[in-house]
Amino acid sequence: MTAPIALRRLDAADPDFARHLDHLLSWESVSDTSVNQRVLGIIEAVRTQGDAALVEFTQRFDGLNAASMAELILPRKRLELALDRISAEQRAALETAAARVRRYHEKQKQDSWRYTEADGTVLGQQVTPLDRAGLYVPGGKASYPSSVLMNAIPAKVAGVAEVVMVVPTPRGEINELVLAAACIAGVDRVFTIGGAQAVAALAYGTESVPRVDKIVGPGNIYVATAKRHVFGQVGIDMIAGPSEILVVCDGQTDPDWIAMDLFSQAEHDEDAQSILVSPDASFLEWVAESINRLLPTLERKEIVRTSLESRAALIHVADMQQACTVVNRIAPEHLELSVADPESWLPHIRHAGAIFMGRYTAEALGDYCAGPNHVLPTSGTARFSSPLGVYDFQKRSSLIFCSPDGASELGKTASVLARGESLTAHARSAEYRIKE
Amino acid sequence: MTAPIALRRLDAADPDFARHLDHLLSWESVSDTSVNQRVLGIIEAVRTQGDAALVEFTQRFDGLNAASMAELILPRKRLELALDRISAEQRAALETAAARVRRYHEKQKQDSWRYTEADGTVLGQQVTPLDRAGLYVPGGKASYPSSVLMNAIPAKVAGVAEVVMVVPTPRGEINELVLAAACIAGVDRVFTIGGAQAVAALAYGTESVPRVDKIVGPGNIYVATAKRHVFGQVGIDMIAGPSEILVVCDGQTDPDWIAMDLFSQAEHDEDAQSILVSPDASFLEWVAESINRLLPTLERKEIVRTSLESRAALIHVADMQQACTVVNRIAPEHLELSVADPESWLPHIRHAGAIFMGRYTAEALGDYCAGPNHVLPTSGTARFSSPLGVYDFQKRSSLIFCSPDGASELGKTASVLARGESLTAHARSAEYRIKE
Repeated sequence: MTAPIALRRLDAADPDFARHLDHLLSWESVSDTSVNQRVLGIIEAVRTQGDAALVEFTQRFDGLNAASMAELILPRKRLELALDRISAEQRAALETAAARVRRYHEKQKQDSWRYTEADGTVLGQQVTPLDRAGLYVPGGKASYPSSVLMNAIPAKVAGVAEVVMVVPTPRGEINELVLAAACIAGVDRVFTIGGAQAVAALAYGTESVPRVDKIVGPGNIYVATAKRHVFGQVGIDMIAGPSEILVVCDGQTDPDWIAMDLFSQAEHDEDAQSILVSPDASFLEWVAESINRLLPTLERKEIVRTSLESRAALIHVADMQQACTVVNRIAPEHLELSVADPESWLPHIRHAGAIFMGRYTAEALGDYCAGPNHVLPTSGTARFSSPLGVYDFQKRSSLIFCSPDGASELGKTASVLARGESLTAHARSAEYRIKE
Repeated sequence: MTAPIALRRLDAADPDFARHLDHLLSWESVSDTSVNQRVLGIIEAVRTQGDAALVEFTQRFDGLNAASMAELILPRKRLELALDRISAEQRAALETAAARVRRYHEKQKQDSWRYTEADGTVLGQQVTPLDRAGLYVPGGKASYPSSVLMNAIPAKVAGVAEVVMVVPTPRGEINELVLAAACIAGVDRVFTIGGAQAVAALAYGTESVPRVDKIVGPGNIYVATAKRHVFGQVGIDMIAGPSEILVVCDGQTDPDWIAMDLFSQAEHDEDAQSILVSPDASFLEWVAESINRLLPTLERKEIVRTSLESRAALIHVADMQQACTVVNRIAPEHLELSVADPESWLPHIRHAGAIFMGRYTAEALGDYCAGPNHVLPTSGTARFSSPLGVYDFQKRSSLIFCSPDGASELGKTASVLARGESLTAHARSAEYRIKE
């Protein structure tokens, strides 16, 4: 007999609803001074001592007996071996997922553009891929082959010439599925290093590890802190918070389906957040009943219980319009619109990382193989950021070619504005190009 | 009689060239613990005390006698007044520049897209503008009307409903050109606050200042540090380093023009960097002669001299191919290709914020009115980042609608991959959607 789970209930009609919602969503990343100091020390050691520091930290933190960097490099052949070692079913599933992810991301590729004005002046942007990207893959339990596909494929689609992966192998533990996914995704080089030292190596380069232009991929607090510090030296993706799902249901989906969708988020870790919003108060109770009935059948039931009790909520709203207001307030990473006509509500959704439309579109399908990326903005950052995509591995250069006539005309305007800012060398540089 | 300027000369044929170039480019932003602590204190005060803290900091740091926030708000009427106060010539120049910048940025607007698969599954991305953007404008000498245009216009083109500008007015000093530019660019609200307190107010909101989704615009070390700290709570643009120009010249442009182009960068501040690369060794000396002759005629000659002596270089290369290698190594913010056929070299340029093509395209034309943005990646970050653009004020939501058939097929793949990651609630959520 398991104790019933204590699920938080909120009602948007409650005068204190806004405050309760703020409290529910509040989450701040740990900013620990001692972590900070240790990470800064590690970065400095890798910058100054290169491979020697990498080998030493890997011995110390990952319990490996590697004598030199040569032992921390996995050749392409080793990735191909992993592809043989996994089951045929797993290999087929990885290949299907990779093909779908590749197809979707190819639609994101951006092209150079330009236009010519009447006087012959040409303006535009040249779009080019990054030269080299670094992909961080956690070791141990959070080592996910799907993340390898989701991070590496957009880079390769963008045309990044070299994708370098780092993955720690604590006590020599290697995840064959991760290596197989790297092989399928076209990862070029793999180093079995991790932690802040791997981030530092990718950011600054060592004798063996090439310096990259951008580092992507999830990691623990040391990895996240290191990424924050090297930001500027290299590009980074977002610093991710805990994963969240917001399900909006009209009350007509099987409550067991909704319960399992909420579980799929909660099973990630104790900080993950699952929220259900519905205008149907009875439906919320049916889902609560499903949650209680199904919870004991879950393999990760302890994690799920902690996550749901500390961070989940069932929210009653007056109608779908109010549900959309709640969605936009939360700006969720994952939004399931488990309703009859999701399309009609789409124009009302302003902020969400990914929108899963209709009763059949479980978040799990998008996590693995539908095609869109599963690296999404968390903690309300969907207000201003986007899913990881090909555009994160491309950058733009403005193009300006002024014809002699164009330069002469523009020079007059530039001269007035530059003198208004007291930047007279700017003004004179423009004035040289004005025709007599 | 002025002492000749000490200009650094480098030659790419020198075996030590790479090391000299690294040294020339080395620049690290100041990361001062005391600045950090003061900024954290200011942010905390604004978060907890709101307007009261803003008023107090503004009294203390800007020397204003404001008794309440009401005195730190400029109504739209005040912006219109500024438009009347500037000269007709200045107003026309601002309007010409704004129209050109708007036209160019309209080409950057990105649209939602989707595609439908054979089984009825729909995939795509919904592109939406940010709700609200914050624009920081420095006070005093570095208060540039052109920056107001360059930051506000892309936001308005993206469809951002509200652009909030903050600009400190130390000792009551107001820049009418800045307010006029704000009026023309369509800025919605202006607060006369600045420093870390203004950044904190935009990030968290106060009783009077609305919370924004992204903060853009340049600022001093307090502003930059505050932006770094609020990153994640809101989006931010890049933390800019000193401005730089790299001019590549085939030796056929008037050396006075090139000297003035280099000056236009150096006059920004002592840390600004101006570099000239040419395969023509004599031409480098002609430009040095022009620099020495023209320097005494500059209004900002002291700043220019310091900048050139500490950070400039004349670099001799074997040929244009080697010049391009140097460009890609530097990844300059501004690149002038002052050569006969700039188009032919474009495919060789992999990294640059903006490329000014041909002898007539002075950087100053792009700084003010050609159309492209003048907010560009500095310090080599053009390797992985882009000019400020409309895309910085739009974000994407992935769209996934699975038909019942699509969900059934995808569910099989998702199930295998989820079980491979030991995420069995994910697997079961997908399996619910598999048809019998």
